[in-house]
Amino acid sequence: MIKIAVDAMGGDYAPQEQVKGAVIALEKDQDLFVYLCGDKTAVETELAKYKYDKSRVEIVHTTEIITNEEEPAKAVKAKKDSSTVVAFRLVKEGKADGVVSSGSTGAALSCGVLILGRVRGISRPGLCPTLPNGKGGITLLCDCGANLECKPINLVHFALMGTAYAKAAYGIENPTVGLLNNGTEDHKGDLVHQEANMALKTTPGVNYAGNVEGREIMLGAVDIVVSDGYTGNIAMKSIEGTGKAVGMILKKEFKRNIFTKLGALIVSGIIGKIKHSLDYERCGGAMMLGLSKVVVKGHGNSKAKGFAVCISQAADAVRGNMIGRISDMLEEIRKAEEAAAQVAEAAQAAEQATEQAASETNA
Amino acid sequence: MIKIAVDAMGGDYAPQEQVKGAVIALEKDQDLFVYLCGDKTAVETELAKYKYDKSRVEIVHTTEIITNEEEPAKAVKAKKDSSTVVAFRLVKEGKADGVVSSGSTGAALSCGVLILGRVRGISRPGLCPTLPNGKGGITLLCDCGANLECKPINLVHFALMGTAYAKAAYGIENPTVGLLNNGTEDHKGDLVHQEANMALKTTPGVNYAGNVEGREIMLGAVDIVVSDGYTGNIAMKSIEGTGKAVGMILKKEFKRNIFTKLGALIVSGIIGKIKHSLDYERCGGAMMLGLSKVVVKGHGNSKAKGFAVCISQAADAVRGNMIGRISDMLEEIRKAEEAAAQVAEAAQAAEQATEQAASETNA
Repeated sequence: MIKIAVDAMGGDYAPQEQVKGAVIALEKDQDLFVYLCGDKTAVETELAKYKYDKSRVEIVHTTEIITNEEEPAKAVKAKKDSSTVVAFRLVKEGKADGVVSSGSTGAALSCGVLILGRVRGISRPGLCPTLPNGKGGITLLCDCGANLECKPINLVHFALMGTAYAKAAYGIENPTVGLLNNGTEDHKGDLVHQEANMALKTTPGVNYAGNVEGREIMLGAVDIVVSDGYTGNIAMKSIEGTGKAVGMILKKEFKRNIFTKLGALIVSGIIGKIKHSLDYERCGGAMMLGLSKVVVKGHGNSKAKGFAVCISQAADAVRGNMIGRISDMLEEIRKAEEAAAQVAEAAQAAEQATEQAASETNA
Repeated sequence: MIKIAVDAMGGDYAPQEQVKGAVIALEKDQDLFVYLCGDKTAVETELAKYKYDKSRVEIVHTTEIITNEEEPAKAVKAKKDSSTVVAFRLVKEGKADGVVSSGSTGAALSCGVLILGRVRGISRPGLCPTLPNGKGGITLLCDCGANLECKPINLVHFALMGTAYAKAAYGIENPTVGLLNNGTEDHKGDLVHQEANMALKTTPGVNYAGNVEGREIMLGAVDIVVSDGYTGNIAMKSIEGTGKAVGMILKKEFKRNIFTKLGALIVSGIIGKIKHSLDYERCGGAMMLGLSKVVVKGHGNSKAKGFAVCISQAADAVRGNMIGRISDMLEEIRKAEEAAAQVAEAAQAAEQATEQAASETNA
């Protein structure tokens, strides 16, 4: 049984949509157990609306809520009985395997770092949303805002963790990775991106496809796009805005007159499918990669269906051993580095021996 | 009469589409004259296909072409008789008022800097494309790739030049400017963006609306979005990719079966309008802001209609005195700085006088 701790009070429509989402996820996944962290009365009121397997739900009463307006780290330290902190604590204590919150991103990140801690060897966790792409599949984009500026090693870690995530939660066998850049050639980008590009070419376990441009994110050229958090954030939101703009134009054109309205009626099924294809919510939330446990951050405005996907995402990542895979990959890199160091040492020893032999011969 | 020099050999479909585009632009604008720089025979062959006002066209024969594969600055120096260099030279010599090329971006930038020179006071020219937005209007995005890294002053200059451009070429009276950032609050972004945000708040002549997120570009929240070239490039291409992805999904859904195909037929007029709304080509090319003359860079894959818009764009910018407006705004800033310095000096003098009076009184 996979156990997921749910922050039932985080989000614009909490706890209604969070509780409903949990019920949907439980219905879909018979091997799932959820802890609903939140105000007992409010959560019970919502739960009472649905039929669900009571043996797989436990309410954990909390008395506080962290809002988006609060300074995250401070709020996490001050509000020990907030739904967010309590949900993370359940994971820390080993009662739950993963946690889902659609509350404040900063608070979730703070809880992740302060309560759960990072995976050994990872200095910077990354925020990795799943985007729907033009091929009808998905593209992972990491980082989307957790780290404004990155070192090459951070970008390499995002690639590695994205790979582990794609394998564990989405069953992609050998996911391809691209580095977001302003061109595909090796000399593109600043020094950080140039170095990261070179390092990724030889990173064990990462199926690196080279630099990719912004347009490849939505065209689905690679499974995982790696970026610093600043650029990733702007790319993601630019994509989001374009989707909305297309929706605005669709609406305007179809509402123009009686004929276009009739047309809209006729193709409404198709338009629905197109909307679904581009719908962010169907792809769930953002995985926080680099923490010692599975943490999914849902959209603040998540509705039940979208929030249910977030819970499934977390359960799938646990089931697919995402964290173990990340550690294994880091270990593989460590071993490769060690082996390379040994080879270098042996080569140096051999050189010295040759030199000595030569000087002895000469003498 | 506005005179535009056209690089007739630059672009994937040159000279066919470039010549046809010039004919379209001439037809639309009776006050336009074009120099077509390119191989005389090739250009004449294309021109022979159309009816046009011969008194407003002059072919300037050139023997060389700069390709995308060449190192721009080198190519510009080596190929003195290339269509690109010759077109820029016509402007330098005062024969033409502006230039349009859909050849190599790097070559056009090099020609701009080496042959025309920058506007006094501008150190970094910016590439400013026009994007169609969800409101049915346009959004200018500067810089989109000319400068990988920027100082705050460069971002301020982009805002100023974008303002002059929006007024001159698009007749927007008091265009609003946003700074592309990973959030709207003043503390968002790195130091460069924080400083630029503060500086823009007091820049004379710039109607600054504050930080804007990626999604605002396509939603049309402001008229001009200012960015460093790296991020701007990735935002622009992310938007481009999303547009293409939507097209892929539309195609797939409408081609699914006989019923959806019928639906597509019924709403084909509407779909055509939606495509038109999102069409980059209808918005023309990117203005190279910061050069001493009007330079428009068209898409490499420009067809005639899109290229005609580029020519109109250049003519409109000349007609609206874009360069003069940029200089005037820089002068205004210089005066404001001078006035501020004088005030500071006067204040210091007054302070000294007061101190002296006080010490004399004490003595």
